[in-house]
Amino acid sequence: MNITVKPIAVAHNSRRSPQDDDWARIPTRIVLESDVPAESLAGMDTFSHLEIIYYFHMQPENGIVTGSDHPRENTTWPKMGIFAQRKKARPNRLGATIVEIDHVDVTERTIHVRRFDGIDGTPVLDIKPLMREFLPVSEIRQPGWSTELMRDYW
Amino acid sequence: MNITVKPIAVAHNSRRSPQDDDWARIPTRIVLESDVPAESLAGMDTFSHLEIIYYFHMQPENGIVTGSDHPRENTTWPKMGIFAQRKKARPNRLGATIVEIDHVDVTERTIHVRRFDGIDGTPVLDIKPLMREFLPVSEIRQPGWSTELMRDYW
Repeated sequence: MNITVKPIAVAHNSRRSPQDDDWARIPTRIVLESDVPAESLAGMDTFSHLEIIYYFHMQPENGIVTGSDHPRENTTWPKMGIFAQRKKARPNRLGATIVEIDHVDVTERTIHVRRFDGIDGTPVLDIKPLMREFLPVSEIRQPGWSTELMRDYW
Repeated sequence: MNITVKPIAVAHNSRRSPQDDDWARIPTRIVLESDVPAESLAGMDTFSHLEIIYYFHMQPENGIVTGSDHPRENTTWPKMGIFAQRKKARPNRLGATIVEIDHVDVTERTIHVRRFDGIDGTPVLDIKPLMREFLPVSEIRQPGWSTELMRDYW
């Protein structure tokens, strides 16, 4: 079963090539594709945060990990299944992140956001408003390597 | 630009048809597709929560909203852009939710989870471990209708 999806927007920012860390200081503009109506953004500014689903378009198909690997190829961290880490080189090459809305410019068909972790030109596949009720209600547990990996991410 | 994705797993639970509410009490099994190695789940049980990206496979293409509409077609709620609400009938038909891991059975290629909000047979496109650092750091603001809509969701 193959599923075809199409970008509904493109992200623009100052980061031109894939990098691991320091995403928080980079502002991003998410601009709707020409066949998507501006009306799709109506009322968005009543929310503070969005979930963005996007596509790792710079990831070559032949490097994708389907089994397990060290996060960031760092062998001091354990080998983890690809679905137990967030490495870009993953089946379907989908990224997901929560961003803060700076402001929505409906006329310009543009959402100005902070804390987006994709590079310039990233195709955006979906945008959903964040509701508190979708956040975890039970305690979050995660291994030490992931806390280390995230130290300079934002 | 068309992007082709393929299910990496399928969700199984007792809910046979689309419904809006009462998701929390339904346990779900997420079973890897036959061409995905069990090793992709290695180490997953060191995390408590997962983000699941899935496909609304029961949503017919011809009902998709590209502009704006009332959430749940409830006219007492404002008309919202499709990217300012989480309606299933959306471009690319992608769903995203955070689930709690009950347990991971690597041999059976199965993840037992709670708080998955898709029906039986839902194709899963990606699974990512939740790290605290991906949750919002600033205050969450959302409109009244969304709080009302979410009242009986879980």
